[in-house]
Amino acid sequence: MKYGFGVDLGGTTVKIAYFDETGTLLNKWEIPTRTADGGKRILPDIAEAIAGFMMQQGIDRDTVLGIGIGVPGPVDHNGTVNKCINLGWGVFNIADTLQSLTGFPVKAGNDASVAALGECWKGGGQGYENMVFATLGTGVGGGIVVGGNVIHGAFGAGGEIGHMVLNRKETETCGCGKRGCVEQYCSATGIVRIAKQFLSASDLPSSLRQLDVLTCKDVFDAAKSGDILAGQILEQVYAYMGEFLANICCVTNPEAVVLGGGVSKAGAPLLEGAKRYFDQYAFHACRNVQFCLATLGNDAGAYGAFRLILQAFGH
Amino acid sequence: MKYGFGVDLGGTTVKIAYFDETGTLLNKWEIPTRTADGGKRILPDIAEAIAGFMMQQGIDRDTVLGIGIGVPGPVDHNGTVNKCINLGWGVFNIADTLQSLTGFPVKAGNDASVAALGECWKGGGQGYENMVFATLGTGVGGGIVVGGNVIHGAFGAGGEIGHMVLNRKETETCGCGKRGCVEQYCSATGIVRIAKQFLSASDLPSSLRQLDVLTCKDVFDAAKSGDILAGQILEQVYAYMGEFLANICCVTNPEAVVLGGGVSKAGAPLLEGAKRYFDQYAFHACRNVQFCLATLGNDAGAYGAFRLILQAFGH
Repeated sequence: MKYGFGVDLGGTTVKIAYFDETGTLLNKWEIPTRTADGGKRILPDIAEAIAGFMMQQGIDRDTVLGIGIGVPGPVDHNGTVNKCINLGWGVFNIADTLQSLTGFPVKAGNDASVAALGECWKGGGQGYENMVFATLGTGVGGGIVVGGNVIHGAFGAGGEIGHMVLNRKETETCGCGKRGCVEQYCSATGIVRIAKQFLSASDLPSSLRQLDVLTCKDVFDAAKSGDILAGQILEQVYAYMGEFLANICCVTNPEAVVLGGGVSKAGAPLLEGAKRYFDQYAFHACRNVQFCLATLGNDAGAYGAFRLILQAFGH
Repeated sequence: MKYGFGVDLGGTTVKIAYFDETGTLLNKWEIPTRTADGGKRILPDIAEAIAGFMMQQGIDRDTVLGIGIGVPGPVDHNGTVNKCINLGWGVFNIADTLQSLTGFPVKAGNDASVAALGECWKGGGQGYENMVFATLGTGVGGGIVVGGNVIHGAFGAGGEIGHMVLNRKETETCGCGKRGCVEQYCSATGIVRIAKQFLSASDLPSSLRQLDVLTCKDVFDAAKSGDILAGQILEQVYAYMGEFLANICCVTNPEAVVLGGGVSKAGAPLLEGAKRYFDQYAFHACRNVQFCLATLGNDAGAYGAFRLILQAFGH
């Protein structure tokens, strides 16, 4: 039996997981991400953490296939990162660097793309070879799996579905500088933004009006309790979700759409709502799509990162 | 040196081309597509045409790698077609059937996807591994190339970009039954439709008002001659093109967008116009894209079809 590591590198913590080659997660732990000094300690910290773990567990180097790593920014298929702003990084080859530090083969990918691969392999998309993964969190990210492989894209920006245009008439600006992006409507932040617009444009009574701080969860909870305005807000959100997911499915014609991120905790009503509008907007030949919830949570990135290195060895 | 055939199966004619393994087109000819009786003569006709050509040219069977074929409808990666309506076909495996008829290995793909592969290999997208091909003709079709391979999709409907939603407020119905599809704005037919809307909504003088039958070419010609209304029509069209192409590029992050089909005869102004709006709508990480014109014309499908069979042999 061979083994390996999947690393999910985030802006505040690094999640490291140890897998056997069948994809069973045997061990996992976290270390802080030290972003000071242009993030130059980050990769040495990861290398030391892995070396320490191996020594402590008495793991034979020869049983380790390598290390996969997901990174919060664009990574091309050679492992070159192109400015991970929240790590302080510029442009360099992370795979080569971590390989020199550890002596193990390394494969790198964008964090959302790698998480998509994880969900496709062992999570909500298990059993599908062609999948779209959308993480609906503070922002909206994603990953596109085709034939079991994730699309990194020519410049490592494959699956940047949060910045597709949904509304060219939008007047507010997205974090990316454009206007009308998916992220402005389908992220947790976007849902709260839409809710506030509905609350000020409507005279309908709503339990949401009593809240000092309105969260995305409040909107879902109120709708569940029968709040009419909350229901209208979510219909608008579902329409946006159905539309952008239908557009992605015209491009890659997947078997499954997997929804993850904080917003996906809304569960079945979210799946049902988004799918209802999807069916309306999707081209008939691309409509045969299963809508599923992500199941790996915060471990998706580690699973997918390890999957990257397995695939590099032809597994 | 090995050889093979690329077949582009259309609703009225079948284009057959004979290539050497480097992709040099050595010979090409056409036969009619006999769609009577559920299209049952189509594949035997192709098999006979190829056998006749080989006998006439004295081609040794052992030098022939196989046959690639592009089909006007969805084809999955195993070669199963799912209702090619204008051929009269139902559901069957075209690759297996043509293989039995000819004795040669056969690979099949959707016609637009196969044309994309052709343009990527030997046409406007030559030198790029990741490409989006849009055929702007009577309708809008397309093909998505990732890492040199075309995305067939789970059900053979990859690259159906003509039916992405561009305008959910549209009141007229697309040929597919939905409303607001790319095809309603960016096809030759769609451009004429928009032109007529502008002509009736505006009081501006325009040379287009004198025409009995308005064509897409008339709009481009008038704009070129300085017709202000024609210029406004094309700005609207370019905005739609820039938007849907930007959305595709968020999904697969290609290096190049190649425009083909009858509308692409407009040439440089079309490229420049669509690219100008693309730059406005595209996510910054996906903006580094070359806009090119298709160069293979009606031969793109045959080139791509032959490329499919070459790829099946690991070339």
